[in-house]
Amino acid sequence: MKDMLGRGEAVSPEEALKRIVSALPDVLPKTENVLIEDALDRIVAHEIASPEDMPPFTRSTVDGYAVDARDTFGASETAPAYIAFKGEILMAQAAPFPISRGEAARIPTGGMLPEGADAVVMLEHANETGGMLEVVKPVAPGENLIKRGEDARKGEGLISKGHCLRPQDLAALAGTGITEMALFSRPVVSIIITGDEIAPAGETELKPGFVRDMNSYTLSAMAKKAGGIAVKEGIVGDDFPLLKGAFERALSRSDMVLITGGSSVGTRDYTERLISEGGKVLFHGVAMKPGKPMLAGMVEGKPVFGLPGHPAAVAVCFDVFVKPVLRRLAGRAGSLRDRAGTVQARLSKGVGSGAGGRTQYIRVALFEKDGGLWAEPVLGPSGLIRTLVHADGVIIIPAGRPGMNRGEEAAVRIF
Amino acid sequence: MKDMLGRGEAVSPEEALKRIVSALPDVLPKTENVLIEDALDRIVAHEIASPEDMPPFTRSTVDGYAVDARDTFGASETAPAYIAFKGEILMAQAAPFPISRGEAARIPTGGMLPEGADAVVMLEHANETGGMLEVVKPVAPGENLIKRGEDARKGEGLISKGHCLRPQDLAALAGTGITEMALFSRPVVSIIITGDEIAPAGETELKPGFVRDMNSYTLSAMAKKAGGIAVKEGIVGDDFPLLKGAFERALSRSDMVLITGGSSVGTRDYTERLISEGGKVLFHGVAMKPGKPMLAGMVEGKPVFGLPGHPAAVAVCFDVFVKPVLRRLAGRAGSLRDRAGTVQARLSKGVGSGAGGRTQYIRVALFEKDGGLWAEPVLGPSGLIRTLVHADGVIIIPAGRPGMNRGEEAAVRIF
Repeated sequence: MKDMLGRGEAVSPEEALKRIVSALPDVLPKTENVLIEDALDRIVAHEIASPEDMPPFTRSTVDGYAVDARDTFGASETAPAYIAFKGEILMAQAAPFPISRGEAARIPTGGMLPEGADAVVMLEHANETGGMLEVVKPVAPGENLIKRGEDARKGEGLISKGHCLRPQDLAALAGTGITEMALFSRPVVSIIITGDEIAPAGETELKPGFVRDMNSYTLSAMAKKAGGIAVKEGIVGDDFPLLKGAFERALSRSDMVLITGGSSVGTRDYTERLISEGGKVLFHGVAMKPGKPMLAGMVEGKPVFGLPGHPAAVAVCFDVFVKPVLRRLAGRAGSLRDRAGTVQARLSKGVGSGAGGRTQYIRVALFEKDGGLWAEPVLGPSGLIRTLVHADGVIIIPAGRPGMNRGEEAAVRIF
Repeated sequence: MKDMLGRGEAVSPEEALKRIVSALPDVLPKTENVLIEDALDRIVAHEIASPEDMPPFTRSTVDGYAVDARDTFGASETAPAYIAFKGEILMAQAAPFPISRGEAARIPTGGMLPEGADAVVMLEHANETGGMLEVVKPVAPGENLIKRGEDARKGEGLISKGHCLRPQDLAALAGTGITEMALFSRPVVSIIITGDEIAPAGETELKPGFVRDMNSYTLSAMAKKAGGIAVKEGIVGDDFPLLKGAFERALSRSDMVLITGGSSVGTRDYTERLISEGGKVLFHGVAMKPGKPMLAGMVEGKPVFGLPGHPAAVAVCFDVFVKPVLRRLAGRAGSLRDRAGTVQARLSKGVGSGAGGRTQYIRVALFEKDGGLWAEPVLGPSGLIRTLVHADGVIIIPAGRPGMNRGEEAAVRIF
C-alpha cells in the first residue's frame, strides 16, 4: 500500500540513472579472443594497433605510367614531355626494376611503384611512341598513388578501446592481417519474471485467471540488441523464498539482474527486500510515466533492477535505464553516433503537460501527410502491449515542461 | 581504357536504383517457420492474427474493489457510498462469485473481474468497516481495468506482412501464445572478390605486390546487418573463365551476387560480360563520388552488382544500392522508422560542389564544440579504409547543388 501512497521520494529519471551509473564498480569487463567473423557489433577490449604498414608498398591508384614527377613539369598538349619507356610492371608482382630520371614504366591500378618513381601519369595523358612516352599533362609528386603506410603505419593505433565494431572497422583489421582480437565479453543479463498469474507463452490452454509472459521476450530481445546475453531465469510466483532462490542463482551467473512483475505491490516489496538484504537500494520510485514504480540497487557489485510489470513501462524503463548501464558493463565507449535514432515530426494532436511533475514518455505512430512527417500519440494504458506495437517511437516531455500543441515539432525516438 | 574516358552514359544514383528495383522479379521470398527465440529483426511473411482474446479476461489494473460503478456515483469524503463486502478474489484464479448491485469484492492488480462488476475502486478510496465498504470517490464504468480482448481480439491482425520484428512485437506474439511463425527466408548474398593482387586476410606473409582482402569483410557485415546471409565465394584472379565459374556457382546458390574488385579495368569488363552473356546490364557508370565505375544488371532474375574495388566506394555503393535491393528481396515493407539514422551537424569546413555533375558522398567525423554538434570532412582518396574508420557518417550533396559553407547545417547519415 505504502507504494501507492507515494512511499519514499520519487527521484527524477536523470537522478536515478546517475545513482546507478556512479554506483557501478570500476572494474573492466572480462575479455575474450574472438574471430573476425564473429566480431561485428562487439566491443574492442584494448586499442588495436596495426601490425604492419598498410598498404605494404606504394600503389598506383590509376592505370598509367610511373614516373619521376619532375620529368613531367611544364608538359602540355602543345609541348609534351618525352620520357624513355622502360617496360611494364605487372599486377601482384614486385616492380622488377627501378626508375631513373627520364624513365617511365607502365603500371596498372593497384600495381607496385618501382623505386625512383614518385607519381603516376594517367593513361589518357600519355602516348607510347617508338620506345618513348609522350606526356601531355604534368603530375605533382605523390599524384595518383597511395603511399606505403598511408592507410595505417606499423604500430599506429587503428581501432580504439571501447569501440563498437562496424563493417568498415572489420575491413581495416582484415587489411592489416588481424583476424582474431581481444573483445570484451558480453554482459550476461538475467531476467526473472514474477507473478502468480503469469503462464509461459508456450502454454496452449490458459487456466482461468492466467495471462502469458510477455516481458521476458521484450527484455531478452532488448538486452541482445544492446550487446548483452540474455538468460531467462523463468517465471516465479509471488513467494519470497522462491524468489530469493531464483535471485541468488541469477546473481551467481550474471552481470545484471532484471526482476519484472510487481503487478502486485507484494512483489515490489520482495524485490526491495532482496536488494536491501544483499546490498543497497539506490532509488525506489521514479518521477516518470510510465515506469513510476521502478526501483534499482547494487548487490555484490551488480546492478539489480525491479521493473514494473506493464509491458509498455518495461520497454521504456529498459531504454532509459537498463540500456545505458548495460552498455557500460559491456565496456562500450560513448559515441556521438549514438545520437542517431530520432526523427523530427509534427504532433497531430496536442499532449498535456502531465500532472505530478513526471517526465512523460509518449508513444507515437508516424505517418506522412502533405510531404511532411507527423506523429500521432498512441493512447491507452501502459498495460496494453498494442500501444507499443502500434507505436514507432516515443516523444519525451520532461517534468515541469508545458505540454505540446498540435503541429509543434518534436524529436521522436524510434524503437 | 574506354571506361576512364567515360564509356556509356553515367546515370544518376536515383535513376540507377530505379532501374534495378523495377527489374526485380515480382516473386515473394521463400518462407520458413521460425521459433520466437530466433525471430528478432526477421521479416513477417503473412499477416499474423491473434488466435485468442488478449487479455483472456477482464483484469483489474489496480489493487482495489470490483464494483458496479453505479453504486459509487456521487460518493465523496463527506458522503461516502456504502456497499456490501462480498469477499476476496485471488490472483491467478477465476472469480469465484458474481457481483450484484450493492456488492463489492476485493481484487488485486491483474486479478480477474467477477461477473457483474464493471469498474474497480482503488484501495485508497475505500475502507472496509464491519462487512461494509465505504467508498469516498466515484468510478466510471470501465475505470481501472483492461477489458477482455482490449489488447487484441481473436482473429484480429496483430502484426502485418513485411514487418521487421522488434522486441515489443515478439512480446505481443508471446502474449497471444504464438511461439513459432512464418517468416521470409533471409536472402543469400554471394560475394566474389576479384583481383590478382588480393591475398586472404589470414595470409601471414604477404608476397610483394599483394594486399589483403578487405571488401569481403565490409560486404558480408553490411549484408548481415541488412537482413541477408552472406556467403564468401572466395578471391578470384583476373581471369575470365575462373570468374565465370565462380559466378555460376554463386548464382546457383544465392539470391544476389556482388562482384567487387575492378581495381583493374579488365575486371569491370569481365563483370559486364558475365551479366550481358547471362542476362541484361541495367547501367554501367553512376554519376556519384565515390562509386562512379559501378555497374549492375539482372541474370536469371537475380540482381548482380559490379562494385568498385576501393573500400570507401564499396561501402557507399552498398548503402545506396545494395541495401535497398536486399531489403526488397527480404520482403521487408518500407517504414517511416527507416528515416532514423541521421543527425544534424554543422560543417566545420566548406565542401565544394563537386565537378562533373556527380552526387557526392562526403565522409565526416562528428565532434562537439560549444554544446553543438559539428561534422569534419574526412579527406583522402576512397582507396583508403582509414577514411571510413575515422568517419561517423556521410553527408550527401546531390549533383548540381552548390557546395556547402563552413557552419552550414547538414544531415549526417550515420554508418
